[in-house]
Amino acid sequence: PAAADSKAKPTSNPLTDHRHLGVEQELFTTSVYSPGSPLFLPKGARMFNKLTNFLRAQYEHFGFQEVITPTIYKKSLWEKSGHWENYADDMYSVTGRGAAGEKEGRQAGEDEEYGLKPMNCPGHCLLFASKQRSYRELPIRYADFSPLHRNEISGALSGLTRVRRFHQDDGHIFCRPSQIREEISRTLDFVKLTYDVLGLGPYRLALSTRPKDQFIGTLEEWDNAEEALKQSLDASNLKWTLNEGDGAFYGPKIDIILQDSDGKEHQTATIQLDFQLPKRFELEYQAPAPELEKKGLTSADPDHSQGSATPVLIHRAVLGSVERIMALLIENYHSRWPFWLNPRQVIILTINDDEKIVKWARHAARVISGYDTQYTQEDFSEAEIKASHFHGSSISVDVDDSARSLGKKLSEAKRKRYGVIAIVGKDNLNMLNVTVDMTGISDRRDLIRNNEILRTEVEREKTRK
Amino acid sequence: PAAADSKAKPTSNPLTDHRHLGVEQELFTTSVYSPGSPLFLPKGARMFNKLTNFLRAQYEHFGFQEVITPTIYKKSLWEKSGHWENYADDMYSVTGRGAAGEKEGRQAGEDEEYGLKPMNCPGHCLLFASKQRSYRELPIRYADFSPLHRNEISGALSGLTRVRRFHQDDGHIFCRPSQIREEISRTLDFVKLTYDVLGLGPYRLALSTRPKDQFIGTLEEWDNAEEALKQSLDASNLKWTLNEGDGAFYGPKIDIILQDSDGKEHQTATIQLDFQLPKRFELEYQAPAPELEKKGLTSADPDHSQGSATPVLIHRAVLGSVERIMALLIENYHSRWPFWLNPRQVIILTINDDEKIVKWARHAARVISGYDTQYTQEDFSEAEIKASHFHGSSISVDVDDSARSLGKKLSEAKRKRYGVIAIVGKDNLNMLNVTVDMTGISDRRDLIRNNEILRTEVEREKTRK
Ligand SMILES: [Zn+2]
Ligand SMILES: [Zn+2]
Repeated sequence: PAAADSKAKPTSNPLTDHRHLGVEQELFTTSVYSPGSPLFLPKGARMFNKLTNFLRAQYEHFGFQEVITPTIYKKSLWEKSGHWENYADDMYSVTGRGAAGEKEGRQAGEDEEYGLKPMNCPGHCLLFASKQRSYRELPIRYADFSPLHRNEISGALSGLTRVRRFHQDDGHIFCRPSQIREEISRTLDFVKLTYDVLGLGPYRLALSTRPKDQFIGTLEEWDNAEEALKQSLDASNLKWTLNEGDGAFYGPKIDIILQDSDGKEHQTATIQLDFQLPKRFELEYQAPAPELEKKGLTSADPDHSQGSATPVLIHRAVLGSVERIMALLIENYHSRWPFWLNPRQVIILTINDDEKIVKWARHAARVISGYDTQYTQEDFSEAEIKASHFHGSSISVDVDDSARSLGKKLSEAKRKRYGVIAIVGKDNLNMLNVTVDMTGISDRRDLIRNNEILRTEVEREKTRK
Repeated sequence: PAAADSKAKPTSNPLTDHRHLGVEQELFTTSVYSPGSPLFLPKGARMFNKLTNFLRAQYEHFGFQEVITPTIYKKSLWEKSGHWENYADDMYSVTGRGAAGEKEGRQAGEDEEYGLKPMNCPGHCLLFASKQRSYRELPIRYADFSPLHRNEISGALSGLTRVRRFHQDDGHIFCRPSQIREEISRTLDFVKLTYDVLGLGPYRLALSTRPKDQFIGTLEEWDNAEEALKQSLDASNLKWTLNEGDGAFYGPKIDIILQDSDGKEHQTATIQLDFQLPKRFELEYQAPAPELEKKGLTSADPDHSQGSATPVLIHRAVLGSVERIMALLIENYHSRWPFWLNPRQVIILTINDDEKIVKWARHAARVISGYDTQYTQEDFSEAEIKASHFHGSSISVDVDDSARSLGKKLSEAKRKRYGVIAIVGKDNLNMLNVTVDMTGISDRRDLIRNNEILRTEVEREKTRK
């Protein structure tokens, strides 16, 4: 469920390959001590956080609730979910090193085996089951950015696309059969919004339906669900194709297949219905007329007595793997990042390393990044720190206050493709401002949307020219 | 390094115990499938994110760069760091389940053992070593919120304080010996700011110095470092005590010991100097006059030729374990949360489940939470979604649009201690506003600081009364 695979082999042209570009831009590195687990360097972690925070902001609108769930679960959970048997080759086993009995004071059961989680679904099923549920609460939508591990063979490992450890923008929707259509439509809206904002695409949708021979659930359940998926797809105004009989035995799915700038296709987002896992975990909710509920119908008759019904589970990931989307973005933008996604949004260069100028440059950085509320000539005082602790950093600002020449600093900042380059000299100290170099600014709207103070500076600079 | 232990046993009074309060407030739950790994429910995850985002905002100011590092590393890394031998009982071992050779196509080396990370330091050492370093780049400060695992015996597991899986606001500073004092001072400032904002304290500081018999490094290195720590402590204007000879063999440390409302002491933050790990990892940077560098001196003589020097490593955690701080906060505030930290900041109640009213309530929620930019009578259109995608959610807003009576909804919202309760009826639909119930608002300043639109509502309501 919700797995996402790139069907294309990594490119090998260093000018377009994310592995080369990512290292050049100092976004990530790799280590022989953890093959397939990319280490995100500061600028890469910044981009990672921008992507996940963008999704978090949308979760408010799309009704998802973020949860934080364990990394390891006992073997017995994975046996219940079926992963221990069906997913054996891809899973890591975890055991306590001091637990084999050679230490005193160890308790029984301590040496039971764990599995390192390859997906979040079983954990989210535990959360759903942690209290009694009524039809009124549904849909319940959980989101989770946990690191996931899958034991790929080492020959295939490479960059951000063939990995053993990755993060998904993973989500699970527990809903009534009658809610499938609405949930799929909302998810397709979410996908559309996200790829629009990221500037990726075009993409096509593929619906995979009931396999001929082996499937669980009734024919009626499948027919109703597939009909709901088709209606949502038609309503989306997007191109979609049918893969008849290509669905998993536990439910139909929609794949989102993205085309990159070279025309190569990558499967990123997935929407997978699941009739099986809720049964394995004996999930249920109370609803009037459970016999109608199952057919995707609801009753308005107050005489219908309540009973137990089984929720439908929808696995869905919009980005798919955050790592893979980063690889696609790196190859798509070639370091010409849109301002909001740029890991190098703003840099302030000092004309020399004079103490006063350095101090002002650092203060200006804090103001632009939203940490301080205003320019002030006074020292940065503790009262200000307290007053400003709610301000998040919507803009990231670096400072180069080294003793090198301004020319050297400027050309380095340009080579690194900073979105905005600001310069601080003696005049700025008196004027309480910074001088903005406009040459690198491609989209002023982005800039203006992001920050009032920076906008003022940019406008001021504009009128000057 | 940077471990943080609560010296007090968990309280057992259900009225004051975080385990009881946390379940009552639906912040977290536990599962037999992963003992010692609390599962954060939506409201608990919200609080977790508020805490980590607060720290992220400070990182801009304190010069920390967030990184994202692997969860598992090969045994050979832990042998290099010394953890495999010295930390054996507390570590989990990880192996690929399909890797024992019974599967075809497996490659040599696939079955090597991994360790599940109990701390981030070795990973950060790899990042430091990933390129050549000059004295000009130092200090380099990495921050990391990765989940960590330590195999505590199951008898001790409980709530958020005795866990096997937890998150630290972990940080590692790589600096020159001459920079120790400044770094410690900045860290003590960071600690002060954080505990002020959280409303926790008082706390005291304890300096542990060189053990008599066994230690690594020279006497001069220890003397210089301890002198720097003492100067920073004196300059902090905080109470501190000396634990003579109580330091680890690899460096002196400062513990921050917090007193809770019952007078119990908890060790939370730690600042641990480390002369050993940089040597084990052969970390180095280029500096003029390396022989002076080591003594904490720097040379202004341009004739000094550059050479290799070993950085000092400072492990530091301000919160310590995020989970433990949450437990302390839960017990400290007893559900009377300050607005910014409240997992239930705002709820909008509808007077009934009329479709128009429900729609308006949901739209108002998006405006207050910062997703939409303004109230509008039109339908929520896609253009608006695109225009507003940069707005993060500084305020979390829930909506209760169930068919239950307003009285029932109101008393539930009050029992759950929502910071602001807003009501939407037919009048609000025409006025494009919400009616704010002021009875639950304890600190209006917090509210005002957070949100312009909500402030307007509150002010409007105030003048009405
Ligand atoms: Zn799933
Ligand atoms: Zn450490």
